Amino acid sequence: MKTYLECVPCLIRHALDASRMVTNDETIHEKTVREVVIALGKFDFSRTSPEMAQFIHRLIRKYTDSADPYKKHKDRYNKLVLNDYHKFSKKIKSSDKPVQLALKFAIAGNIIDFAANSNLENFSLEDAIKEALSTPIHGNFDEFYNTVVKAENILYLTDNAGEIVFDRLLIEQLPKEKITVAVRGAPSINDATFEDAQDVGLTDIVKVIDNGSDAPGTILEDCSEAFKKKFEESDLIIAKGQGNFETLNEVEKDIYFILKVKCAVISRELDLAIGTPVLRRNSLID
Amino acid sequence: MKTYLECVPCLIRHALDASRMVTNDETIHEKTVREVVIALGKFDFSRTSPEMAQFIHRLIRKYTDSADPYKKHKDRYNKLVLNDYHKFSKKIKSSDKPVQLALKFAIAGNIIDFAANSNLENFSLEDAIKEALSTPIHGNFDEFYNTVVKAENILYLTDNAGEIVFDRLLIEQLPKEKITVAVRGAPSINDATFEDAQDVGLTDIVKVIDNGSDAPGTILEDCSEAFKKKFEESDLIIAKGQGNFETLNEVEKDIYFILKVKCAVISRELDLAIGTPVLRRNSLID
Repeated sequence: MKTYLECVPCLIRHALDASRMVTNDETIHEKTVREVVIALGKFDFSRTSPEMAQFIHRLIRKYTDSADPYKKHKDRYNKLVLNDYHKFSKKIKSSDKPVQLALKFAIAGNIIDFAANSNLENFSLEDAIKEALSTPIHGNFDEFYNTVVKAENILYLTDNAGEIVFDRLLIEQLPKEKITVAVRGAPSINDATFEDAQDVGLTDIVKVIDNGSDAPGTILEDCSEAFKKKFEESDLIIAKGQGNFETLNEVEKDIYFILKVKCAVISRELDLAIGTPVLRRNSLID
Repeated sequence: MKTYLECVPCLIRHALDASRMVTNDETIHEKTVREVVIALGKFDFSRTSPEMAQFIHRLIRKYTDSADPYKKHKDRYNKLVLNDYHKFSKKIKSSDKPVQLALKFAIAGNIIDFAANSNLENFSLEDAIKEALSTPIHGNFDEFYNTVVKAENILYLTDNAGEIVFDRLLIEQLPKEKITVAVRGAPSINDATFEDAQDVGLTDIVKVIDNGSDAPGTILEDCSEAFKKKFEESDLIIAKGQGNFETLNEVEKDIYFILKVKCAVISRELDLAIGTPVLRRNSLID
């Protein structure tokens, strides 16, 4: 998906919020905003917004001299959700529709997104779960489930730390022997990396690889050869979150996007209201 | 007031909204956003935000090949408020506190602002008035009134079209023989010009001059010599709206700013909540 004109101010706002989240040094905030503005002045808007976000987070890592400036935030959300893992797991197992319920949890988890929500301090996990469980998913669950059952090699692309605990709950309800999980190849804002997958026990239940890229999305040409091979070989991709949608929605592959609509641009693109929990099959299947 | 980092995305958002308001040509939207982004990359943030807004509206006029692209919008709001002029005037005259009430109307009118509100289509004048009349003004009314009574030469700087009908209602309650009204020197978004002052009858009741500038604020070095002389000679300035506040709040002059707080930056600067009706004396009096 291209970078829409509305994404331009949003990316700058994000650069400012994200740099403020990790440093109080106002000269760094200004240098970051200034460089992002200059880069946007030259940016090819036919490219995806996560490409610019990748640039933003490389800048923030450079200026804060930290390889993983959001580490403590990621740890906090991993722990926060892990605390309730058993409660959620029990609820799913005792449900008469466990996979649907796990999918609802997985979508609820997509709210833990520093890119779309700069004010996660006031975020209530409990409220997000409550809302998610009472909101019907927009999508064809039966078709999704049948496709998962028929598929032989499934690649599950995660999004954020904390959220991956919910992904674990969903993966536990799916035929996990057929699933490979792919996380980001290096820290990019609060996106989950291999370390996060280990921290929440995903690596204990399923094969986890990384995609070799530090983009908050899946920019195939930026990913490792190993990841690209795995992507190519998989007959079904499950992709979490807006960043993966923005970078993969024009890829000719059987992809189910699982996300919560969090901004006006995605809302328009999907023709769904902000806040909608979405299960959307890629319309560009071969 | 300097351009805060939060103003940067807001200015780009404004450029996009404002260009969409006057043309459906997406290439113009993109060219406008692109040029504004490039200009912001080089902009000295110690300068005021209305300087960048001046650049934005020069661009929009250039690309739409129109000297006054918001003319029909300005006319619409002038007429909309004029329709109720007699009703409002009667209400003020029959009030036991006519000047306070007229001041409340004048602040209510400050909501007609395309720069801060891109979605004025859904704007309800009636609701704005109702809210303004029931909300106490943050400021010292008695001090303001005494200062007006004592002053010999008052310069009243207007803000937007439509809003100037409310300014007329206030000016009618003040010693108007001492007042000169100054409008913008050339069209800049929906800011009032001499033509608007004529259209709403301001020129019939008070002396009206223009400031010689096309900035949506009062950038003194950009104003005409005649205006600057008048500004210098006046012993009291009454300045409407955020744009005038942003450009004059560091000028050493006795200025009363009359505005509604419409964004987070002004809210922080004034330490008042968004939506607050404000009567604020400049703290930098000689």
